[in-house]
Parts: sequence; C-alpha cells; structure tokens
Amino acid sequence: MKIYEMKMAPNPRRVRMFMAEKGILEQADFVELDLQKGENLTAEFKARNPMKKVPVLELDDGNCISETMAICRYFEETHPETPLLGRNALEKAQVEQWLRWIEFYFFLPTGMCFQHTSGYFKDRMTPVPEWGEQCRVAAQKFFHFLNQHLQGRDYIVGDQLSAADINALTTIDFNKVNKLAIEPEQTHLKAWYDRISQRPSAKV
Amino acid sequence: MKIYEMKMAPNPRRVRMFMAEKGILEQADFVELDLQKGENLTAEFKARNPMKKVPVLELDDGNCISETMAICRYFEETHPETPLLGRNALEKAQVEQWLRWIEFYFFLPTGMCFQHTSGYFKDRMTPVPEWGEQCRVAAQKFFHFLNQHLQGRDYIVGDQLSAADINALTTIDFNKVNKLAIEPEQTHLKAWYDRISQRPSAKV
Repeated sequence: MKIYEMKMAPNPRRVRMFMAEKGILEQADFVELDLQKGENLTAEFKARNPMKKVPVLELDDGNCISETMAICRYFEETHPETPLLGRNALEKAQVEQWLRWIEFYFFLPTGMCFQHTSGYFKDRMTPVPEWGEQCRVAAQKFFHFLNQHLQGRDYIVGDQLSAADINALTTIDFNKVNKLAIEPEQTHLKAWYDRISQRPSAKV
Repeated sequence: MKIYEMKMAPNPRRVRMFMAEKGILEQADFVELDLQKGENLTAEFKARNPMKKVPVLELDDGNCISETMAICRYFEETHPETPLLGRNALEKAQVEQWLRWIEFYFFLPTGMCFQHTSGYFKDRMTPVPEWGEQCRVAAQKFFHFLNQHLQGRDYIVGDQLSAADINALTTIDFNKVNKLAIEPEQTHLKAWYDRISQRPSAKV
C-alpha cells in the first residue's frame, strides 16, 4: 500500500505516529508531494481524493481512503493489537469525544489561524485575518484546557496512549507556525508533552 | 440514561436519527435545554460538558459523553446490530472518510455561515460576516459534490444506510437557516434526499 503525504504537514504526521505506535510504519510506501508547488492539485491526485488533501491511503486493490482519522480507523480495524481508539464501548466513546474536541477546538482553529494570518495559501483562498485572529484565541484557550485536564493524568484518556494524545501532541507542534507554545505556567501540559514527545513514534 | 439536547438543533437530531435506526430511541430519557436562554451555560451543565454544547449522553453510572459522533460510537459498540458506521475495515474507513468530509466541508461551514451571518449567538461571539459568506459558498459547493457522488447510488457509502446519510440529510435540512436548499438540477441529490427523508427515523 501507498500513503501520499507531505512529510512536514501535520495530518500526515498524525498517521505516521499512529502507524509507528502500532509497529506497522514499514508496511506502507510513502509518496512525497509538494503542496506549495500544487502537486496535490493534479487530475491524477484528485481522482484519489476529490478534496485534494493529504494524506491519502491507497490500498493494493486501488481503493483510496482520505482523511487522517479514516486512515487511522482502517489500521485500527486491520491491526487491532495496540488499540489506539479505545478498548471498550465507554473508552471508545471517550477517545472519540476527545478526538473531536481536539479537532474542532484545537486542530481546526490552529490550521485556520495559519491559513488566514500567514498568507501561506493566499494563491488559492481569500484570507480573513479577523477570523484567523479569533482562531488564534481559540487555540490558546485549548492549551489552557488541556493543561487543566492533564493535572494528575498520564494520558488524555484512561491509562494508556490513544490517538487523542497523538493528535494533541502533533497539534501543539503544528502551532509553531502560529508562534504559539506551551506557557511556563502550564506545567501539567508540559510534563505530558515531554513524556509523549520522547516516544520513538513522535520522531517519525 | 439521559440525553441532554435541544430538539430543534441539528446535532441532537443526528443522534436521535442514529438511535431510531438502531431501534433504541426509547432507551434514553431526553432532557430539553433552551440554548437561547443559556441553559447550557450553567455550572451544572458545564460539569457534564466543559464545551457547553448539546447533545450530552449521561450514563446511569454518571459518566457523560459529549460530541454527537462519540455518542453514536457508544451506541454502535453497545448495539452493533444494524451497523451504521460500517461492516468491515474498508467500509468503516469509507464511512469515517465521508463523516469527516460531511463534517469539515458541509456541517461546519453550514453552522459557521449561520453563526457569522445571522447574529443568532452575537451575545456570546463576535461574528465575522466575510468569513460567514465564505462558509456559505463552501456549503453550496458540497450540495453540488454530493449530487455528483449520488448519481447511480442509493446510499452515500456502499449498499445500505450509514451515519453518512444521516449526517448529510440533517445538514441539508439545517441549511434552511442559511436559505440554502437542493437546486432543481441536483436531481441525484433530490432523489436520495426524498428517499432518506421518508424513513421514520427522519421524523424523530
């Protein structure tokens, strides 16, 4: 199987870290695209993902799966050992809740702050800086929210690593583009961040 | 168990339709909140969901699950008969891909168009009308995208109803607040819409 990605982009990193935690990173060939050059905008790539985003998982039979968490879901089903999306009904729901909180209140505002304030994709969108600044405030709030949640906890959900930790960690690192980082007083978040980012999967 | 909701809001409808398709709607007591009056902003409710959003599922042991799709995930795990999130690894990934496409490219723009152009929540946010109008265009594009996808198809994924159909249908209806509707030339979308909206679950 192949995974089309741009290695420095945050969504592909989420998939690689998920795969590395499951020990299956070597099972895919990774194909690097240059988004800045528009290599994701070709007709060939649009046939794989009409939304023109990376990552895309292409299976050996030609089926393509877009969307980071859909790719992770596929690997959770095909490689259920080392579960990263929860071990029972309640935990699966709690992981899903956190994945959505991280997506809606952290990852999306982080991405929109970048897109609407940096001008990075201004050739293919019309930035609304006022909206980008609201997103910056939302992302900052989530750093605070996560810090409070992590007091007395080793992981975001339950007693082991889940995709929630992966997605939160990668979103924190993504925030470098917005010049947002963990504040000195966010000690619970910092301790968790230091622990998770030392895992080998955080370096792939 | 209890579900805190506001019946007319789109996210609670997604959960009710999901539960109705599984035949488990009667297993929960529904507690109506008036969001316009701020009944979701109390300390009591914030203890159930720090994001102060509906719906929230409260289990009999006191555990609370927020986020529509996390609640649906819980019911998929506890009531796996009538699967609505896919039947095998590939289909589960395809449903998840479509759930995310519908969420990111349709439901969120629909909601943000409403929030940023109607002034409905202007007491608790600063609307950015220019951003709201970009969201309107995005929502309109998704009507077109769905219409193309549904040519020759009875359901969004595979050969049976999934949460993707539920979420797309409820987002189309939600778009009434933005005065967006299926265009006369979107015949594939219209045929699918008429079929799905005749299901008893669409009326609960």
